[in-house]
Amino acid sequence: MAELRTVRTAVAGAGGYSGGELARLLLAHPRLQQTPPLFLGRVADETGSIPLEQLQPQLARGRGRTLPPVQAFSWELIEAAGIDLVFLALPHETSREWAPAWLERGIRVIDLSGAWRLHDSTNRAIYKLTDADPALAAQLQTEAVFGAPELHREAISTARLVANPGCYSTSIILALAPLLRAGLVDLDHGIICDSKSGVSGAGKKATDKTHFMYAADNLSAYSVFGHRHTGELLEQLSLTSAQIQFTPHLLPIPRGILSTLYVRFAAPQQPEAVERTLREFYRTSPMVRVRAAGDLPQIQHVAHTNFCDIGFHLAPDGQRLVLVSCLDNLLKGASGQAVQNMNLMYGFKEEEGL
Amino acid sequence: MAELRTVRTAVAGAGGYSGGELARLLLAHPRLQQTPPLFLGRVADETGSIPLEQLQPQLARGRGRTLPPVQAFSWELIEAAGIDLVFLALPHETSREWAPAWLERGIRVIDLSGAWRLHDSTNRAIYKLTDADPALAAQLQTEAVFGAPELHREAISTARLVANPGCYSTSIILALAPLLRAGLVDLDHGIICDSKSGVSGAGKKATDKTHFMYAADNLSAYSVFGHRHTGELLEQLSLTSAQIQFTPHLLPIPRGILSTLYVRFAAPQQPEAVERTLREFYRTSPMVRVRAAGDLPQIQHVAHTNFCDIGFHLAPDGQRLVLVSCLDNLLKGASGQAVQNMNLMYGFKEEEGL
Amino acid sequence: MAELRTVRTAVAGAGGYSGGELARLLLAHPRLQQTPPLFLGRVADETGSIPLEQLQPQLARGRGRTLPPVQAFSWELIEAAGIDLVFLALPHETSREWAPAWLERGIRVIDLSGAWRLHDSTNRAIYKLTDADPALAAQLQTEAVFGAPELHREAISTARLVANPGCYSTSIILALAPLLRAGLVDLDHGIICDSKSGVSGAGKKATDKTHFMYAADNLSAYSVFGHRHTGELLEQLSLTSAQIQFTPHLLPIPRGILSTLYVRFAAPQQPEAVERTLREFYRTSPMVRVRAAGDLPQIQHVAHTNFCDIGFHLAPDGQRLVLVSCLDNLLKGASGQAVQNMNLMYGFKEEEGL
Amino acid sequence: MAELRTVRTAVAGAGGYSGGELARLLLAHPRLQQTPPLFLGRVADETGSIPLEQLQPQLARGRGRTLPPVQAFSWELIEAAGIDLVFLALPHETSREWAPAWLERGIRVIDLSGAWRLHDSTNRAIYKLTDADPALAAQLQTEAVFGAPELHREAISTARLVANPGCYSTSIILALAPLLRAGLVDLDHGIICDSKSGVSGAGKKATDKTHFMYAADNLSAYSVFGHRHTGELLEQLSLTSAQIQFTPHLLPIPRGILSTLYVRFAAPQQPEAVERTLREFYRTSPMVRVRAAGDLPQIQHVAHTNFCDIGFHLAPDGQRLVLVSCLDNLLKGASGQAVQNMNLMYGFKEEEGL
Repeated sequence: MAELRTVRTAVAGAGGYSGGELARLLLAHPRLQQTPPLFLGRVADETGSIPLEQLQPQLARGRGRTLPPVQAFSWELIEAAGIDLVFLALPHETSREWAPAWLERGIRVIDLSGAWRLHDSTNRAIYKLTDADPALAAQLQTEAVFGAPELHREAISTARLVANPGCYSTSIILALAPLLRAGLVDLDHGIICDSKSGVSGAGKKATDKTHFMYAADNLSAYSVFGHRHTGELLEQLSLTSAQIQFTPHLLPIPRGILSTLYVRFAAPQQPEAVERTLREFYRTSPMVRVRAAGDLPQIQHVAHTNFCDIGFHLAPDGQRLVLVSCLDNLLKGASGQAVQNMNLMYGFKEEEGL
Repeated sequence: MAELRTVRTAVAGAGGYSGGELARLLLAHPRLQQTPPLFLGRVADETGSIPLEQLQPQLARGRGRTLPPVQAFSWELIEAAGIDLVFLALPHETSREWAPAWLERGIRVIDLSGAWRLHDSTNRAIYKLTDADPALAAQLQTEAVFGAPELHREAISTARLVANPGCYSTSIILALAPLLRAGLVDLDHGIICDSKSGVSGAGKKATDKTHFMYAADNLSAYSVFGHRHTGELLEQLSLTSAQIQFTPHLLPIPRGILSTLYVRFAAPQQPEAVERTLREFYRTSPMVRVRAAGDLPQIQHVAHTNFCDIGFHLAPDGQRLVLVSCLDNLLKGASGQAVQNMNLMYGFKEEEGL
Repeated sequence: MAELRTVRTAVAGAGGYSGGELARLLLAHPRLQQTPPLFLGRVADETGSIPLEQLQPQLARGRGRTLPPVQAFSWELIEAAGIDLVFLALPHETSREWAPAWLERGIRVIDLSGAWRLHDSTNRAIYKLTDADPALAAQLQTEAVFGAPELHREAISTARLVANPGCYSTSIILALAPLLRAGLVDLDHGIICDSKSGVSGAGKKATDKTHFMYAADNLSAYSVFGHRHTGELLEQLSLTSAQIQFTPHLLPIPRGILSTLYVRFAAPQQPEAVERTLREFYRTSPMVRVRAAGDLPQIQHVAHTNFCDIGFHLAPDGQRLVLVSCLDNLLKGASGQAVQNMNLMYGFKEEEGL
Repeated sequence: MAELRTVRTAVAGAGGYSGGELARLLLAHPRLQQTPPLFLGRVADETGSIPLEQLQPQLARGRGRTLPPVQAFSWELIEAAGIDLVFLALPHETSREWAPAWLERGIRVIDLSGAWRLHDSTNRAIYKLTDADPALAAQLQTEAVFGAPELHREAISTARLVANPGCYSTSIILALAPLLRAGLVDLDHGIICDSKSGVSGAGKKATDKTHFMYAADNLSAYSVFGHRHTGELLEQLSLTSAQIQFTPHLLPIPRGILSTLYVRFAAPQQPEAVERTLREFYRTSPMVRVRAAGDLPQIQHVAHTNFCDIGFHLAPDGQRLVLVSCLDNLLKGASGQAVQNMNLMYGFKEEEGL
């Protein structure tokens, strides 16, 4: 029996929510059983290493068995480990600054931040990124592949730098892309994306808006006409800012996104045709589940999974469509999708370990 | 000092969520201190009466002081008590059937169900109501006043039958009415109402959809293109079903509604003008709080109050408007608005006891 | 008709959760309608004043009517306003440092922190307080009255300095005091207090433990054998640390405390006798509701009220007692109790405005 | 390479919460990849079969791939499938009645209800079970093994009938057993178990107590001195009802149990010795994680895992111990433990597929 191909991975930023889910997935990934990931993080301790279970107690193993430690970064460490691929689960400024150094050493990068997702510098301006070497950054940006496997499977498989999509964006892009590509949508009318996300999407930093008392028993809209993920929608769906608008809301739940999308068809359609268009588009995609007409997904259906579920209702007039798209923001919206990208990059089965 | 005018009230349906809030408000209402409400409900006990605190333990008084009991209904009881006004917090079929008998006895009615809200029988069909005396019902329907004080203050003050508005409808109507009346809205474009409600809106009956495990850590859209409150939107805002669409969602919180409304202006506007239009409309309305442009309300701001808060963001193009409207579905969306209507009907200060 | 007596109050710390509830209660208090409270807080603005609704949006009034502003502190301001009573809703270090200056000016103080609750300096050590004038502090500490109206009604009515009790302590002390005073409890056996509190008890500061992701879908015990409120239990119940132990837990809800208390009786009792002992103790207390034997209170029964509800189950052996005590930590556990104390200090009805 | 041993399983009751988790675990279990479970349930449809994803939408597979169907029961079906082992995730009356027929056909049974857990008929009385063949039931009851792998590993491996433990019981028994067996506990003093469970423990049936509005923003104690799981504690820990008392509470979360246990040691101990006793007891147990002294587990650490986490605080007196034990009531408290038992019964690795 031939040996299974593997990959030597590193995870930078193992302490956050995405980092925790990434660690959980990679530690259980069938292809990484012989080569567990190298975890990198802030290690105050002078030993240069802390137990991963200290940052992520839910991952602890029983019976005294330990997890790989979280280690202080050094290129010596990386080289000694022979790392092939690094996951950057870091603030976007850090990713933007640091990714070139990994690539330069021949290490492929899956970046979970917004640093490399936007090809148009106007769209990217909202991240306030600065580049030490603008020419290099521009070249890498051109090369970077937006890591939506359902849209860019081929390009991802050979990419050196994969920009893992935003959580909101994934839920919106996957629902709209099939209908836009099929030319069904009246673009002049404008598309409305009313999205709702659990609190883990706001990150682990304690702020006034991640305080339990702010989020619990509440719902709030924010960043209306100004959310960072809007640029991804424009670029990936080839739309102008007049053609799509996006309103995120903060839900009082830990994880999950539901996007309710309002689309006008250029001409009346039958529900069956809409369903067929969606199903056909995702025929070869293992991580998207299309629902029958009128059967809407809910956040519970996707929580703790890497699926994106898509359902819809079509008005009797055949033109007004309500699409509902759900995913787990930490999995299909972040770490699960990152592992899906790794699978593609190394020729594993797309859904392996997910 | 002249004696304050009072009113002798009855509450039918004191066991539900609306009934509980109504009981709380009426028991504390300054005008009813000498004449506490008569509570009516299902009393299995042969004594013909059970303590209100058995149905609503949170209302109990300390130190052995008792609340008025919940009594089995009889017209003798009603007549002996000299009831002026009854609140019907009952299923719509029961309200439709029973309201005429109260009115016939000269007792004014505030009905919290959907039984009498819709003047157009096509819109009303969704409630599947049947009338024993169709002619009388038709006449009463004509006479019934939709109990939105901000729209029908005068008519409510003299009404015999007030149809207290739906919770979703209140949040949507109050946000849209000022802009529609000002003629700012491009009606051909269509208005989108994306609303989210806490679970108390679904009533006290234990069902699969009110199960904690269904609602918690979840969000789900439902009744797309088919919710009962749509008729209220059409009638109160004078719109056709092509001009407005409404998608309700079930939030994992006990109480509160937030509606995100998407409107296209016929011509570009300035944010200041939009704010002025809203403020002017509610200049004399104590229970609506208009926010400055860009300052959005949240459910926490209105929970446990009778306020409807309205805020908005206007796109840089001056035409795409996102309105956010919030209220407590049990108060401004039900019992609080009912008390507000009572205040108008009896010449009290509109916000008295709220 | 004689004019109602009033009191001119100030609130220091109007921005927190307790401060918000205090502001709500005082603004609606019948005795303060002519003399609304003076709100003091951090005002960065050079105008020296910010709108209260900016800190507490839920308190905003409709129709453009404003609330009293939050003003930067100065003694000139206090003197000009003729303040009689100040509520200190501040960190305990600040209260300890500042209270003497208010008292010196003849202004009575209700302090909501732990600064003045503990008469035994060993118990107080956990707060790490330092006193500029130790002799004065010691004298004030002697004079300070623990603000549990049900235990110290008389002393509170004439007190200059009221130390408003801790939220956990209130729930425990009120349940145990009647049984301990009746001499029913086997003290050698030891009392166990297993308490659970909503997140507002942890304060408004954003920390790792108030992050939504930490508290939601979770339960955690903390400060086992070491919580600050333990000293209040020892002093108010005249127990040694061997006789009572207290384990607090963080509940995934905004507000409310439930304490489950395990007591062994020295001799077998009848449930009726236990109920009678509790009822008799609270015969004149409007804010404690004693339940019948076997009828346990829940957090929902007391949320948004100033009641403390007490119920119990007695084992068939008549000796093992489980007491359940509930209150709203922001009301009976903080601001509501503070207002109750104000009522006693100024001869108002104890439950007025609550 | 030798073929891996497998087992042909059936699941009766695939529609509930335990059934859903069981289905998820078995469908992903490495040993069952060639022989997916046979799902049995109520099938109204005359086709005799409904899709599993209709009952458990979260389990659906992408890309049109279907799950095994849920089929109407018949012995023909069972025999044709050659079932070795059935999981009964059914009401206890049904399990009690039905288990003998499975056993008679040579099919091993893991019963998730309380039907077969209690050997003492007095303890069992609370379930109000009636047996068609009392002699056979008595014999099977004697033979039934209480399915706590950490206590009865050997017996489970050869058992025909495994009574999977209660969720509360598991959390309590695993924390106490090591200390009781070591003879450290002062039994005369009595042990107190204050447990808190998420709502899934109450089952899928919609009732007043599983209503979102009942459970949310609430905490309530129930079944004080009378919960069904008490019998398991007595039998498995060899205690009398005077020696242990158990108070369950309903937490406003979907899943997870935390038990806070109060134990008095017969003689003072060092924390290190307590930790050592616990660790030693679970030295060979992969699914129990013992914490260092003073490091307490939380529900979040075990949710969605099959671990039981145990931590403790010892008072300075060395005698008063607070143990905290956490597990996921649907996994280690039900379906995960059932799979762990299956693993033992068929010689798989104890933690395989968990």
